[in-house]
Amino acid sequence: MSLLVKGGTVVGPTGTRVADVLVEGEKIVAVLDPSFSPTITVDEVIDATGKYVIPGGIDAHTHMELPFGGTAASDTFDTGTRAAAYGGTTTIIDFAVQRTGEVVQDGLAAWHAKAEGECHVDYAFHMILGGVDADALKAMDQLVTDEGITSFKLFMAYPGVFYSDDGQILRAMQTARENGAMIMMHAENGIAIDVLVQQAIAKGQTDPIYHGITRPAALEAEATNRAIALAEVAQDCPLYIVHLSASQALEKVAEARHDGRNVFAETCPQYLYLTLEDQLGAPGFEGAKWVCSTPLRSKHEPHQRDLWKGLRNNELAIVSTDHCPFCMKDQKELGLGDFSKIPNGIGGVEHRVDLVYQGVVDGKLSLERWVETIATTPARMFGLYPQKGIVQPGSDADLVIYDPNGTTRIGVATHHMNMDHSAYEGVEIKGRVGTVVSRGEVIVADGNYHGRKGRGRFLKRGLSSYLM
Amino acid sequence: MSLLVKGGTVVGPTGTRVADVLVEGEKIVAVLDPSFSPTITVDEVIDATGKYVIPGGIDAHTHMELPFGGTAASDTFDTGTRAAAYGGTTTIIDFAVQRTGEVVQDGLAAWHAKAEGECHVDYAFHMILGGVDADALKAMDQLVTDEGITSFKLFMAYPGVFYSDDGQILRAMQTARENGAMIMMHAENGIAIDVLVQQAIAKGQTDPIYHGITRPAALEAEATNRAIALAEVAQDCPLYIVHLSASQALEKVAEARHDGRNVFAETCPQYLYLTLEDQLGAPGFEGAKWVCSTPLRSKHEPHQRDLWKGLRNNELAIVSTDHCPFCMKDQKELGLGDFSKIPNGIGGVEHRVDLVYQGVVDGKLSLERWVETIATTPARMFGLYPQKGIVQPGSDADLVIYDPNGTTRIGVATHHMNMDHSAYEGVEIKGRVGTVVSRGEVIVADGNYHGRKGRGRFLKRGLSSYLM
Amino acid sequence: MSLLVKGGTVVGPTGTRVADVLVEGEKIVAVLDPSFSPTITVDEVIDATGKYVIPGGIDAHTHMELPFGGTAASDTFDTGTRAAAYGGTTTIIDFAVQRTGEVVQDGLAAWHAKAEGECHVDYAFHMILGGVDADALKAMDQLVTDEGITSFKLFMAYPGVFYSDDGQILRAMQTARENGAMIMMHAENGIAIDVLVQQAIAKGQTDPIYHGITRPAALEAEATNRAIALAEVAQDCPLYIVHLSASQALEKVAEARHDGRNVFAETCPQYLYLTLEDQLGAPGFEGAKWVCSTPLRSKHEPHQRDLWKGLRNNELAIVSTDHCPFCMKDQKELGLGDFSKIPNGIGGVEHRVDLVYQGVVDGKLSLERWVETIATTPARMFGLYPQKGIVQPGSDADLVIYDPNGTTRIGVATHHMNMDHSAYEGVEIKGRVGTVVSRGEVIVADGNYHGRKGRGRFLKRGLSSYLM
Amino acid sequence: MSLLVKGGTVVGPTGTRVADVLVEGEKIVAVLDPSFSPTITVDEVIDATGKYVIPGGIDAHTHMELPFGGTAASDTFDTGTRAAAYGGTTTIIDFAVQRTGEVVQDGLAAWHAKAEGECHVDYAFHMILGGVDADALKAMDQLVTDEGITSFKLFMAYPGVFYSDDGQILRAMQTARENGAMIMMHAENGIAIDVLVQQAIAKGQTDPIYHGITRPAALEAEATNRAIALAEVAQDCPLYIVHLSASQALEKVAEARHDGRNVFAETCPQYLYLTLEDQLGAPGFEGAKWVCSTPLRSKHEPHQRDLWKGLRNNELAIVSTDHCPFCMKDQKELGLGDFSKIPNGIGGVEHRVDLVYQGVVDGKLSLERWVETIATTPARMFGLYPQKGIVQPGSDADLVIYDPNGTTRIGVATHHMNMDHSAYEGVEIKGRVGTVVSRGEVIVADGNYHGRKGRGRFLKRGLSSYLM
Repeated sequence: MSLLVKGGTVVGPTGTRVADVLVEGEKIVAVLDPSFSPTITVDEVIDATGKYVIPGGIDAHTHMELPFGGTAASDTFDTGTRAAAYGGTTTIIDFAVQRTGEVVQDGLAAWHAKAEGECHVDYAFHMILGGVDADALKAMDQLVTDEGITSFKLFMAYPGVFYSDDGQILRAMQTARENGAMIMMHAENGIAIDVLVQQAIAKGQTDPIYHGITRPAALEAEATNRAIALAEVAQDCPLYIVHLSASQALEKVAEARHDGRNVFAETCPQYLYLTLEDQLGAPGFEGAKWVCSTPLRSKHEPHQRDLWKGLRNNELAIVSTDHCPFCMKDQKELGLGDFSKIPNGIGGVEHRVDLVYQGVVDGKLSLERWVETIATTPARMFGLYPQKGIVQPGSDADLVIYDPNGTTRIGVATHHMNMDHSAYEGVEIKGRVGTVVSRGEVIVADGNYHGRKGRGRFLKRGLSSYLM
Repeated sequence: MSLLVKGGTVVGPTGTRVADVLVEGEKIVAVLDPSFSPTITVDEVIDATGKYVIPGGIDAHTHMELPFGGTAASDTFDTGTRAAAYGGTTTIIDFAVQRTGEVVQDGLAAWHAKAEGECHVDYAFHMILGGVDADALKAMDQLVTDEGITSFKLFMAYPGVFYSDDGQILRAMQTARENGAMIMMHAENGIAIDVLVQQAIAKGQTDPIYHGITRPAALEAEATNRAIALAEVAQDCPLYIVHLSASQALEKVAEARHDGRNVFAETCPQYLYLTLEDQLGAPGFEGAKWVCSTPLRSKHEPHQRDLWKGLRNNELAIVSTDHCPFCMKDQKELGLGDFSKIPNGIGGVEHRVDLVYQGVVDGKLSLERWVETIATTPARMFGLYPQKGIVQPGSDADLVIYDPNGTTRIGVATHHMNMDHSAYEGVEIKGRVGTVVSRGEVIVADGNYHGRKGRGRFLKRGLSSYLM
Repeated sequence: MSLLVKGGTVVGPTGTRVADVLVEGEKIVAVLDPSFSPTITVDEVIDATGKYVIPGGIDAHTHMELPFGGTAASDTFDTGTRAAAYGGTTTIIDFAVQRTGEVVQDGLAAWHAKAEGECHVDYAFHMILGGVDADALKAMDQLVTDEGITSFKLFMAYPGVFYSDDGQILRAMQTARENGAMIMMHAENGIAIDVLVQQAIAKGQTDPIYHGITRPAALEAEATNRAIALAEVAQDCPLYIVHLSASQALEKVAEARHDGRNVFAETCPQYLYLTLEDQLGAPGFEGAKWVCSTPLRSKHEPHQRDLWKGLRNNELAIVSTDHCPFCMKDQKELGLGDFSKIPNGIGGVEHRVDLVYQGVVDGKLSLERWVETIATTPARMFGLYPQKGIVQPGSDADLVIYDPNGTTRIGVATHHMNMDHSAYEGVEIKGRVGTVVSRGEVIVADGNYHGRKGRGRFLKRGLSSYLM
Repeated sequence: MSLLVKGGTVVGPTGTRVADVLVEGEKIVAVLDPSFSPTITVDEVIDATGKYVIPGGIDAHTHMELPFGGTAASDTFDTGTRAAAYGGTTTIIDFAVQRTGEVVQDGLAAWHAKAEGECHVDYAFHMILGGVDADALKAMDQLVTDEGITSFKLFMAYPGVFYSDDGQILRAMQTARENGAMIMMHAENGIAIDVLVQQAIAKGQTDPIYHGITRPAALEAEATNRAIALAEVAQDCPLYIVHLSASQALEKVAEARHDGRNVFAETCPQYLYLTLEDQLGAPGFEGAKWVCSTPLRSKHEPHQRDLWKGLRNNELAIVSTDHCPFCMKDQKELGLGDFSKIPNGIGGVEHRVDLVYQGVVDGKLSLERWVETIATTPARMFGLYPQKGIVQPGSDADLVIYDPNGTTRIGVATHHMNMDHSAYEGVEIKGRVGTVVSRGEVIVADGNYHGRKGRGRFLKRGLSSYLM
């Protein structure tokens, strides 16, 4: 099976060019100047004239089916990866979980069992370490060497659930420093936050907005600084801050990067568009839709301005979604009368490519940085490059043909995620995912779905390209 | 009893002047221009011509008789305050200790019992909180209101001994914010340090120098930053960082002060003069003499330059000693073969006034800052002003007549502390404590001691002058 | 003649105390505890119970009779120093001027001629250098050695009038580094500003507000940074930035101070209370009243918040007035239709003590910093300490008895400056200058004037106390 | 004519891949996976197995034949571009010069006359503005619109020769802001430097090392800060700092970039490898070889460490050479006995690709950043992308086949520049330029030259890719 994508404007990290992309089987085999016409027979030709041809999106942070607070994220690997495909994301990196007391490899096996045969697009795993001990440290080596798991997430929040203390973090970082893995960090001072949460509940401050108020930006910045310091003590272990939301935390990352440290960060669309007051503070219990951690930040402070700036100057490397959807009914409702019981998470795996593109339309980001932050850098950061993240010969034929003249209206009526609401209800994007190609196969065309469950493959990942 | 100190150069925080100081009973009642000669009859006249007249030194950080690591600091309130007097320090603020599980007030009572009737100079107490819980928070209020204890020290190090977690720290800070107390912080990430210590011991790195190497500056800076962040979350609770030793920690304090935060710090003479390599790294076990926490820092980094700079520009407010002496024999020796068992502490209560004055001689500090950092600011910081810390009418007649033409040679042969060695053996100061007056009584004159045990009084302190 | 100020609360830079102040002739001869009653006969007793007794204010930046833009500042040394006395300022430091091409000493002589026999309070001179050449550099030495002129002001603005280029500035700084003088800097990039001014005029933007718009904060910050860099190249010549108005410039000063540099700055009341929009942008030509350089800054930026913060943490050392009054009629009106022709200056010598005290009332400044910023630090900074700036034996008996329960309403109807308007019309201060004593003589009492022209003396100044 | 480069490792800004590059005529027409073998007939096949295939180097800063100090740079466009070709640089951007008083277009015409028919590789021009006036501002627009000159260099140094004052700079920046041009800045405070130079000469400090000593880093940082401030006032005009050499200047650039400003900078190989002491301070007059401005910096400060760090984290965007060679004989010798008469400049156009590659070998830079800093970013920065700077279909077939297993020994005996010495004599690079292709033509192969004078074409440039 061969495919020729003709006449499109290929967007790469350094610029655009009109070029033809030739696919044979699952791979791109050539990128050709339109003036050059070798005699090649192809099975299918897609005319991409006037459209952008970009590498398939890579969402480096999703949580399909994640058990949390007595329920589980409402998207399965089936529904979630199908929604991703609709939105131009052809690879997800989800999180396998070791809970405290569990064997790391058992957690991984459990996640493989959940995902295998279910996915519509390719997938990989980071590993959440819920309890760093001697066995877990050994397991880190084994996962890097044998399992294609090269990144490990730790939590400075959620004591009793995922929390690691600073000694555990340091040990994991030392191990990562040796085996080349990336440490990913949920950077919030959960010990202090839990005090604020208890005090709020005790005062009857139980509405969803107090979820945000009890997680102040200062405590995200503090934890970010601490993670950076521990990585320094671990002989400059590479560190990746997940779901960075606050200007003050960005300052810490920027400082570390200025100092030449291997420190990276992602933000998420929710922090670029939504706010504490307008969403989390919605009347009644509606704000529960937007309960996630780190929380949405205040619109009275320049967080969003700074996050866009950070994306421009590469202080922020990646936009991921932290996709972790919960329905209002039966799930978010667990926290009626007590915000601390609301499952934490926002669903957005379907909308990331569009939402970041809207930044291009708004003049906040270049086309090049759009592609870098949603595809190329995730691939390089997490050991998938050059298989993924770039339109070039030898790479997987994961392509999105994006129509800058289309429009996309986001909402529960049209989205494909398993959610009874949308975090972005009514938002309209000036742009539209047209055709989506995954390993040479057209899985979305004109809004119609041609993929199928189980076609997505597990990807063993190598080490990050950013190690020197 | 009246006393006239005639013709001396009175040094205050803003400059010097030749003036006569008239004392009646325990108080200064007048400061007079030498040209002005009212007919006043006095019992004693001291000619201070050519000498500096400064307020008696206030050492805001001592640990007499502190139990630590199975032994106790070798100076009692008797021997320690007598040595202080010799060195021109007429007030100490020692630390009463609540150990985990104890009632705060019981700890205070125990320390009152140790000190009462023993001291040669006036004394006050900070309170160490070894376990912040609901009772301790209530006790904080009671101590501020009734007991003249207006500062509380917490530890981010020494888990299982003094350590408070970030939630406990936050609660104590919130309480202090309400009742006006000052939170003092031992800022080192003890959880991470303990990992490094165990790893070093496991590798056979047992010499005293590893005490320093396993407590890297980055972990002092991290904890300092964290303490500042928690104080910010506690609605800008006043915060005082004790024994700051590293440039990187100073940067954090400086930033907070620049931002207008009520953040203060002290350093100690050991950090201004001694180093990791030259002292802690002395051959064999000798380095044990200088095992203290925070540790001495590397001479290959500009810590000492930066600390002196910080003293000049008031990023560092105070020089205290953290006086906590242990003899080599039977005490420091507990750590033979395992640096982690060496009792932590250096003795220096006798030498602070001299050692800081040496900075004046060396052109690193002005006369004014000398007096501020050793007397005036400690008094203002900890609620003893204007009773202490200044030469002015109405204040206690605590005076040191300091001879800039004298010399002081420091060493075990001549010092009065109960130590079998000196941290500053052989150091020669160009300057000398002459006469020491404590509440109107000459207790040291020409190197002879005229004081007595028990004359020192407990001082109830008010709130810090730096609260606004 | 002797005077006893009884029972007042003496405010000094480190705190307050109730004390009696005894004056003999022109000097303070004793400060006494109220409990102490030697038999002293005095000619006059002032009861200061319930009032603050502070050192007489020192305004380190005034321009009496300054020729500017074809006219001259409307206050003479007579009217200006009389108004100063009313407002509790007992010393001014005015600026003698060398214009380009003039002999420095001739300029000084001319200013002596203007002031001699005219002043109501003591006065000193800084020297403005309008043209740094070899003769001027020699003159600097002579003025320091013989004339008691130890500070020299240069301008980075006003090309063709006062402007010095960076080479001239560097040479003057090198000379000052040698002879111990302080370099004072008008830090605005006048070369760039003049381009903006010409462009505005060419576009018909002639209203007073364009005076501010064409002098952006970025160009104050730039010049401040440049002055600091040149001082560094001149081997760390002491540098004093005058009339600092912008947050961005304050950042530069703060950085330099953090780096341990001998860099100081003043701000003025106008920058603490007035804004670009509300005053300079007043309808019609009224904004001309507030045309001064540096200009008032935008209320939409946190300049005032930052300036108060800078006063608290000593990044700003002094509040001076830059008193340079022009009447609207015949003077400010020169700029009708062309803001660039409006004489630059605001009058305020009479209100500084009150306006800064209002900061104490508002909780923005401590009593101690009030006294420091208006009296003690100006004295120390400019070589008048301990003769001036402190209430202590041996110092000049310059005292203000300030009533915290009084009120002061500022306005043209009541002020004593020679101005046909007030920059602070209608402002009400919760506090009031009561009695003013200048060298032992009561010159203001209960709002009545008892001084007289010519009683003020020229003060030869020494070097700054801040040199190390 | 067609060419197939087979089996090489193509290095791009985001990573490497083994691919075949197909060239037809002057263009790359396809990049092919080696597994893909369409039937294509080519005239020539180059086997690049085991070698890097990179885009031809772009040296964005050269000065062929530049008149300076009574002589002229010793490389003509003929000799200089031939040497460039040998070293893997297939495009240079040289500087046409308008001297004060000249018509800008006349200067451009003069440089076209020098270059036309002489060049071995493609070339473009920046324009030096030696006198910004109304005509020059108009000329800027015309050059952008009609002549393909989209960048303009100004000097804050060399008064009387190239110097522009801050008002001129501001006007040029405002014009550039409108027409989209890039302002390039020689950022040194030449006014202050000239004072230091005169003082040094007057003191008999005439050796070459004083060239460096009289141009302190503080004055490079100052000018860099000033240029950034002026660009801010010009509504964020894009700004490019040339030949950045000092840590302190880098700090200013980094700050501006962190603030989201369009500020960029280059450094040069001489600052990465050579020092004030070791080269400029060579015995006798030998140091003259390394007299260039900005000067080499002290090895006792961490400039080189910081510059490499800046290259890694993109605070420094580009490595150019500032190639401006002068022979010792008859040229550098003009400054015997007076360093200020030594022509300023170092030759290095031939060695840039190698010298930066050595950073890869030394672990200081990634392969990707090597290609970005020497080719891709220069192309994007100066409007040559995607014609130049990338290996992709549609781009000019400018290729370097670089042998990581070769070695290059730099020295006067082997180099091709018209210089009687080498700045890097004896330096050995672990790597070697193999084949060089310029617009489809092999011009260097195995050290043999196949190009010819006149084949290089003038490139009209578009606007920078970095404008948003």
